Amino acid sequence: MSALGSHERAAVLVEALPYIQRFAGQVVVVKYGGNALAGATSTSEAGALALFAQDLVLMRAVGMRPVVVHGGGPQISELMGRLGKTPEFRGGLRVTDAETVDIARMVLIGQVNPQLVAAINVHGPIAVGVSGEDARLIGAVPRDPALGFVGDVGAVDPTLLRGLLADGFVPVVATIGVDAAGQAYNINADTVAGAIAEALGAEKLVYLTDIEGLRRRVDDPASLVRQTTADELAAMVDDGTVDGGMIPKVLSCVRAVRAGVRRAHILDGRIPHVLLLELFTDEGVGTMIHGGEAP
Amino acid sequence: MSALGSHERAAVLVEALPYIQRFAGQVVVVKYGGNALAGATSTSEAGALALFAQDLVLMRAVGMRPVVVHGGGPQISELMGRLGKTPEFRGGLRVTDAETVDIARMVLIGQVNPQLVAAINVHGPIAVGVSGEDARLIGAVPRDPALGFVGDVGAVDPTLLRGLLADGFVPVVATIGVDAAGQAYNINADTVAGAIAEALGAEKLVYLTDIEGLRRRVDDPASLVRQTTADELAAMVDDGTVDGGMIPKVLSCVRAVRAGVRRAHILDGRIPHVLLLELFTDEGVGTMIHGGEAP
Amino acid sequence: MSALGSHERAAVLVEALPYIQRFAGQVVVVKYGGNALAGATSTSEAGALALFAQDLVLMRAVGMRPVVVHGGGPQISELMGRLGKTPEFRGGLRVTDAETVDIARMVLIGQVNPQLVAAINVHGPIAVGVSGEDARLIGAVPRDPALGFVGDVGAVDPTLLRGLLADGFVPVVATIGVDAAGQAYNINADTVAGAIAEALGAEKLVYLTDIEGLRRRVDDPASLVRQTTADELAAMVDDGTVDGGMIPKVLSCVRAVRAGVRRAHILDGRIPHVLLLELFTDEGVGTMIHGGEAP
Amino acid sequence: MSALGSHERAAVLVEALPYIQRFAGQVVVVKYGGNALAGATSTSEAGALALFAQDLVLMRAVGMRPVVVHGGGPQISELMGRLGKTPEFRGGLRVTDAETVDIARMVLIGQVNPQLVAAINVHGPIAVGVSGEDARLIGAVPRDPALGFVGDVGAVDPTLLRGLLADGFVPVVATIGVDAAGQAYNINADTVAGAIAEALGAEKLVYLTDIEGLRRRVDDPASLVRQTTADELAAMVDDGTVDGGMIPKVLSCVRAVRAGVRRAHILDGRIPHVLLLELFTDEGVGTMIHGGEAP
Amino acid sequence: MSALGSHERAAVLVEALPYIQRFAGQVVVVKYGGNALAGATSTSEAGALALFAQDLVLMRAVGMRPVVVHGGGPQISELMGRLGKTPEFRGGLRVTDAETVDIARMVLIGQVNPQLVAAINVHGPIAVGVSGEDARLIGAVPRDPALGFVGDVGAVDPTLLRGLLADGFVPVVATIGVDAAGQAYNINADTVAGAIAEALGAEKLVYLTDIEGLRRRVDDPASLVRQTTADELAAMVDDGTVDGGMIPKVLSCVRAVRAGVRRAHILDGRIPHVLLLELFTDEGVGTMIHGGEAP
Amino acid sequence: MSALGSHERAAVLVEALPYIQRFAGQVVVVKYGGNALAGATSTSEAGALALFAQDLVLMRAVGMRPVVVHGGGPQISELMGRLGKTPEFRGGLRVTDAETVDIARMVLIGQVNPQLVAAINVHGPIAVGVSGEDARLIGAVPRDPALGFVGDVGAVDPTLLRGLLADGFVPVVATIGVDAAGQAYNINADTVAGAIAEALGAEKLVYLTDIEGLRRRVDDPASLVRQTTADELAAMVDDGTVDGGMIPKVLSCVRAVRAGVRRAHILDGRIPHVLLLELFTDEGVGTMIHGGEAP
Repeated sequence: MSALGSHERAAVLVEALPYIQRFAGQVVVVKYGGNALAGATSTSEAGALALFAQDLVLMRAVGMRPVVVHGGGPQISELMGRLGKTPEFRGGLRVTDAETVDIARMVLIGQVNPQLVAAINVHGPIAVGVSGEDARLIGAVPRDPALGFVGDVGAVDPTLLRGLLADGFVPVVATIGVDAAGQAYNINADTVAGAIAEALGAEKLVYLTDIEGLRRRVDDPASLVRQTTADELAAMVDDGTVDGGMIPKVLSCVRAVRAGVRRAHILDGRIPHVLLLELFTDEGVGTMIHGGEAP
Repeated sequence: MSALGSHERAAVLVEALPYIQRFAGQVVVVKYGGNALAGATSTSEAGALALFAQDLVLMRAVGMRPVVVHGGGPQISELMGRLGKTPEFRGGLRVTDAETVDIARMVLIGQVNPQLVAAINVHGPIAVGVSGEDARLIGAVPRDPALGFVGDVGAVDPTLLRGLLADGFVPVVATIGVDAAGQAYNINADTVAGAIAEALGAEKLVYLTDIEGLRRRVDDPASLVRQTTADELAAMVDDGTVDGGMIPKVLSCVRAVRAGVRRAHILDGRIPHVLLLELFTDEGVGTMIHGGEAP
Repeated sequence: MSALGSHERAAVLVEALPYIQRFAGQVVVVKYGGNALAGATSTSEAGALALFAQDLVLMRAVGMRPVVVHGGGPQISELMGRLGKTPEFRGGLRVTDAETVDIARMVLIGQVNPQLVAAINVHGPIAVGVSGEDARLIGAVPRDPALGFVGDVGAVDPTLLRGLLADGFVPVVATIGVDAAGQAYNINADTVAGAIAEALGAEKLVYLTDIEGLRRRVDDPASLVRQTTADELAAMVDDGTVDGGMIPKVLSCVRAVRAGVRRAHILDGRIPHVLLLELFTDEGVGTMIHGGEAP
Repeated sequence: MSALGSHERAAVLVEALPYIQRFAGQVVVVKYGGNALAGATSTSEAGALALFAQDLVLMRAVGMRPVVVHGGGPQISELMGRLGKTPEFRGGLRVTDAETVDIARMVLIGQVNPQLVAAINVHGPIAVGVSGEDARLIGAVPRDPALGFVGDVGAVDPTLLRGLLADGFVPVVATIGVDAAGQAYNINADTVAGAIAEALGAEKLVYLTDIEGLRRRVDDPASLVRQTTADELAAMVDDGTVDGGMIPKVLSCVRAVRAGVRRAHILDGRIPHVLLLELFTDEGVGTMIHGGEAP
Repeated sequence: MSALGSHERAAVLVEALPYIQRFAGQVVVVKYGGNALAGATSTSEAGALALFAQDLVLMRAVGMRPVVVHGGGPQISELMGRLGKTPEFRGGLRVTDAETVDIARMVLIGQVNPQLVAAINVHGPIAVGVSGEDARLIGAVPRDPALGFVGDVGAVDPTLLRGLLADGFVPVVATIGVDAAGQAYNINADTVAGAIAEALGAEKLVYLTDIEGLRRRVDDPASLVRQTTADELAAMVDDGTVDGGMIPKVLSCVRAVRAGVRRAHILDGRIPHVLLLELFTDEGVGTMIHGGEAP
Repeated sequence: MSALGSHERAAVLVEALPYIQRFAGQVVVVKYGGNALAGATSTSEAGALALFAQDLVLMRAVGMRPVVVHGGGPQISELMGRLGKTPEFRGGLRVTDAETVDIARMVLIGQVNPQLVAAINVHGPIAVGVSGEDARLIGAVPRDPALGFVGDVGAVDPTLLRGLLADGFVPVVATIGVDAAGQAYNINADTVAGAIAEALGAEKLVYLTDIEGLRRRVDDPASLVRQTTADELAAMVDDGTVDGGMIPKVLSCVRAVRAGVRRAHILDGRIPHVLLLELFTDEGVGTMIHGGEAP
């Protein structure tokens, strides 16, 4: 920081002011993916996590109410491997037998979640790990018998999250769902993030990814989409412009915005402090999806 | 139930009345141990867990505020085995290197805890899994460098638990602690239960075990201690009457009662619904420790 | 209780669990009639009152909000006799001159009501006697000039009852009403109970009587009606199946259920702890009236 | 009012202003005695009651929290006579067998209390009758076995009164007490009024009597005591200046003022609106007792 | 007061009772004009202000929520004169250049407002001066470019007033408004009073003037209008019966009553304590405007 | 800002984080003096005010509770001049006759205060002007009869400020005090700022001045005091190191810190955004006074 003068420092804070005012008390749901970190070159994964934690703590310190949602696919595969099981995918979805869902539960709730919680709590006792089984937060319905315990989101009961937010905590949600009989399911974390944003009436839904943003032509960096509407985005899925692993994110953005979430964002998680840049500066980053009104 | 007449049914409910009145709004911390189930003969482990869940739900339904604390030593050893690590103990304590504490975390937070949560939530969305890392609930201090990440309880911050109890939830606590730097520690669950009871100003601290209660002479079933004081109990530890795995439980009882918890109990978890019998009937079960006043 | 084992005791409590959960915070209005006690053979009247008091205290202890409504016709007649007045009835209603309404007031508010209050308060300071004149709880309109100060229920103002319930008290209501000019009226207690249940949005309205329940054929014990709807019940009044003193109870049940009270019950007050049996066990007792939906 | 000009009307209201400000939110306990009305010449008893009710309603309307306490000795004797019982007194206290306490209860709770409640409620639904049995408000201890169910005040539990005052109601208290076993006792209303003032931390305790105030020399109207201290008053009892039926009032004043009630008053209930004159005008009426500080 | 007997004093207070009950918690907006004082003969201006302050304090003491609104045209002209500026009016409105609005602001906020605040606060720390710039209470829109900074009321944001009223304060409002750019405007105080009454959902809007009330024929004292409706009043403006400086008051009354204010009053501020006479006695004073329903 | 990269922007925000956390909910009293602006070279006075307003709005946006206190000596002298009065000073204090205090009141409450309020409210409806007369916030006692209406601070009643802060407003306080009789006094704004900080239990008391900070040797810029204690500072007054117009500021700092305000600051108001630099960056500016503990 030594090269930065007083004037510049003050200017950054003043630039942040209208954003701080606008977002006071608002819920922002942030989907944090393991892949978001993968491309970071100048920092280790732990370093990227530490930066992400700082962003969350700052968001809360200025009055926002962030909620973190995470998955952990690579970590699940890794533990399966160590336990001698071979991951099997159909249509991009992991075939999940009883043992696999137990492994997913251990990894998501007992490994990834505490890592995120610990990284945030270095700054103060504010993060609280939550799974979809707690207070039956995430109701699950089976997706396809052939996939085993892979679920779709049934109903989200945000009571627990509301209570934690009201008490000033930052909930960190592991995306294990539960059916009426108490059976656990593994659910796509992108989808869960959208459903939680919707259930909480969030102001923003943010996906941290390992891409710069959506492109109109996949190979053309110049075709990066800065802003778009839910309708245009839905069309981009229909015509194949968006495909692969981006589809759950994109469809969740479309659905959430249509259900009242004011803005959805697809950001490049490899950029340090990308959340702060998006939230508190005039600089546009990534792709922003809105309902169609003048942004 | 067919053989039970109306008169008997009403009598049981009426017998429970004064206890329901006495315990309304009171916090009761229950340490639930895997071993407590081991001796159950007439029911499967899952069945015992279901009975325990019913007891907790009934406690809450009549206005008590139960908190569950659990460990999971056997389950940790089992996963270590599956991952090719050999558990090593010194003085009864597990030597815990970095990989082992990660395994302990996965097992306690991601396996045992969700099992308890799910068993309770069959009756309604009330149980919430919590680890000692959440909101820095359980501060840890290293016990002995030779043991690695084995911790003693430093400070308990009951803010999160108070909020969950006030919102009507039943917290289920996995006994992973955290030091100031965010490092996780494995901590004896018996000790944590006592420290939480103390921090919450609990009315009762209950240990569910696989023994009938404390005995004055270990081989003499007739020497079962029905009631005792913290002072007598401390003496029983000093003179060797109590030893082995019971020591953490017994010392926690002594400390908790001296710190203001009104009653501590060592109950036989193998008896179905032993919590209900202790709490809501005139029948005495197990060993009860009080402060020395007329009970 | 000596013959009852631990297992049976726990089973009764567990059986009660879902009912306790379902009725938490719900208002239950119980009409308690002098006649309800008349047929009790194995206990004295005082004993029956003591059992009834236990039931109420248990209801409140597990989170329900009971309200007791009572009349006292026989006691009014008795004091009239001692004071040299001859009770006179027309069409089943007591002709009530100014002196008679003063006597009714003394008996209901100053004799029967304190007996009920005292019986409950043996268990704790929770019962509060209330008359319809207090805070103008029960507005009265004259029924028939020829009957004098016999009233119908005009408007019920539940403000006082709501305040007492919110403070954790059990209101015990003497059924004296008051007109706009402050004149007291004697009002049928069955009718008042229904109107209070309606005004409070009660979950249940319960009449304790000296019959087993309603019968389809008055002389045939086997024709006891276990469950019925408001419509069927109204038809039973129209076709004369129900008659005499049951009519005010039955019409109040019909009206209350139609106005949103979920269940009305006509129970045999001669059965010890009949309230507990109805509320907290799977055993059906008496006649239950519901709105017509699947019960 | 026709002769009173605008200027005079406004002047009265303005004179009341500092008193209204001073007494806002303060509790004032008023003992209302049947005898207070006996000497009223220009109005009927009903008229006097109506004036008293207006005063109470005005007190509450301007923000004070009045509590009325009453007895009813003459009315008890009258009903006893009608029921063929001869009242018997020893040392000024009524010998009270089981039947007599039932009669006292009927008269106080069921006759005098509703009359007061009804008179107040003509102005709005604010008065609520309360007996010492309700929520065990007035604990009683037997005074003398020879007197039967005549009680002294044991403990006052003001919970119910506090709740009613907080909800904006005017409690009207019938002075029946209750012992631990639930037995009712007749208690001197003057004594109860003082104990309630003490328990509520009242600002004022007011006795409405049928005398002009205390006199230093009983036959000398010019010796009327305008102001005195608890100590002087205690001395006046010791030296016999005060005797007879005034003693319970005077001793209650002494005790209440010593326990923190700021002012006690002995007023002439025969003067119309004497409460308003005392509370809201600069004119001194009756005898005022204070703690000894400059008034 | 010496000639006024106890009976008369009490009668005044009792006469006030139903009005105190009716107005409890109600907001009353009082427009206080310098001119209102000009005709007072028997008291100095300071004396009239002191009487007005007493009335306000009494209103608040008995539970009303008064809000004072004031202008200060003569005082503005006077300071302009002292500073060498000549006031200029067009169509009855002051031409207001930048220097003039600064003078108006100084006079209204810094001179007239503190005089009112100080007069009230002699009785206790309850009055709080407020200008339309505080918390952007009074939004202004320019009326006519030729008039400079003369504004019409745009939007009223009553948040600040609601907070002060809830905390028990009496807001005293200086009628300077503010546009979106932060520019101050001078606004007619009669109009502001009506707009504030409307925004607060006031019970009453009262104009203190220097006339006896509205007349149907301006030269005929016998044609004083005691009561009228908004519709009749609007017609009186249309047909020229009302003209000159009364028009803003009258139109504000019409608009406020149509927007839900229950009563508007045009009173003679020269009558000492005219507010008390209007509010708390049966005597009618001035002109009362209602919505057309039976008053 | 164009030259500032993303990394630098984020770094500034992250640097602010611990300060935002530390100051959340804390009261900071800022004395804003006309002189503070006089030395600003690169911006006009209006520009400096706009920057100051931004700082306040940012402080509040991140959860602090700023209170502004201001005087206005030069402006008072200016209006006196325009009105033909010659300001007269004795010992640095303005001789204040009745006319002068009226002028001071007009200037402080009606001119300077609304300017500050308007500058802040450009960002939202949050600033509320308050004078020491409102709700009797600042009690005044006369300082010296020869000075006329110049007051010292008597008692501060922070009730009004607490209410405004709780409602989220930024109070802007004009330093007119009031004595028991309602007479206004002009009081030194530096002294008032300290007294308000003390009464509110502020975290910080900040003086914006036109000097760089305190110096140990007045002519040696290198002797600038970065940090000092209340005791050292008191000694600097005693030995003459501090003199002239700085004395009220310095003595207020000493007194406030001794009374529990954690930090006092003397800052150079000529530096743009000096408040932000002091509060939210690691850079030290001006002189900081603490209680003597390790800072």
